[in-house]
Amino acid sequence: MTMTMSELSVPVLVRGLTVLGALLDKGEAHAAAAGVAPEALLSARLAPDMLPLSAQVQSACDTAKLAIQRLGGVTGPVFANDETTFAQLRQRIAATIAYMESVDTAAIDASFGREIKLNWTATGPVFTAQGYLLSFTLPNFFFHVTTAYDILRHQGVSIGKSDYLGAYTHQE
Amino acid sequence: MTMTMSELSVPVLVRGLTVLGALLDKGEAHAAAAGVAPEALLSARLAPDMLPLSAQVQSACDTAKLAIQRLGGVTGPVFANDETTFAQLRQRIAATIAYMESVDTAAIDASFGREIKLNWTATGPVFTAQGYLLSFTLPNFFFHVTTAYDILRHQGVSIGKSDYLGAYTHQE
Repeated sequence: MTMTMSELSVPVLVRGLTVLGALLDKGEAHAAAAGVAPEALLSARLAPDMLPLSAQVQSACDTAKLAIQRLGGVTGPVFANDETTFAQLRQRIAATIAYMESVDTAAIDASFGREIKLNWTATGPVFTAQGYLLSFTLPNFFFHVTTAYDILRHQGVSIGKSDYLGAYTHQE
Repeated sequence: MTMTMSELSVPVLVRGLTVLGALLDKGEAHAAAAGVAPEALLSARLAPDMLPLSAQVQSACDTAKLAIQRLGGVTGPVFANDETTFAQLRQRIAATIAYMESVDTAAIDASFGREIKLNWTATGPVFTAQGYLLSFTLPNFFFHVTTAYDILRHQGVSIGKSDYLGAYTHQE
């Protein structure tokens, strides 16, 4: 009657990145139909000192990857954050999903209760693994997916809430 | 070594709403300092057919409230969505947090595995309680908190990512 750390992380993050990929598809189609340069859409942002669309995608991928890496206590691939096209960002998403699904779920499950310290400062912050997942990873992950959506909406791409929520094709 | 449904929902939602309240405080202070009418900020949106800031706050509150209501199998307060001031929105957040913290955690925990059907159509969607929490509630909840943040940033309010992520004052 409870859930394990792998159940709480991998499918949630994979689902979110899959949604993000579908949002990018609609963004790319919009750019083509409206005669907008793809790179103009990928460099759009909501405020001068906010990250553009491409970096929101990179950040969503890295937030997901680093979570599984830290929870699983394993190494992960390093990406150069040099994607400049929709195709490259889709590839980044695919590679991140493939990595997350490759990590042993037992290793992720074993993280429960373990201390996870981030190196933002000499002293942390320090979390329990479950606190790291629930009070840092998931809010931060959905921040980047949502901000990607918000940038696309702000740029006039025809997407709606159902594109963000994704399809419910089975009893999830 | 696992987590219960109440542990996975109440503190995560309470934390998010607390962050949202602090973002509103900064928005209100910005409006006062910049000579912007509070109602102009509360009615700001990122696209003509997106919800304005005030409705993002209302939606975050309702997403959280309805989750605890459905998981706990209990009734909850009904709000009129008639808030037009920062003070009223803060009160809405406070009332939502108070409600969530009042529900018996054992009732929420007992939801695991139970079917939850939403009435969007005659046939659902239908979720398990845990699927409802992880693949609908949390993405939707953070969507509204993040979009509130994005609207404030787009309007020039001086907030940053740390305001969204919130303080880590203890081992969460």
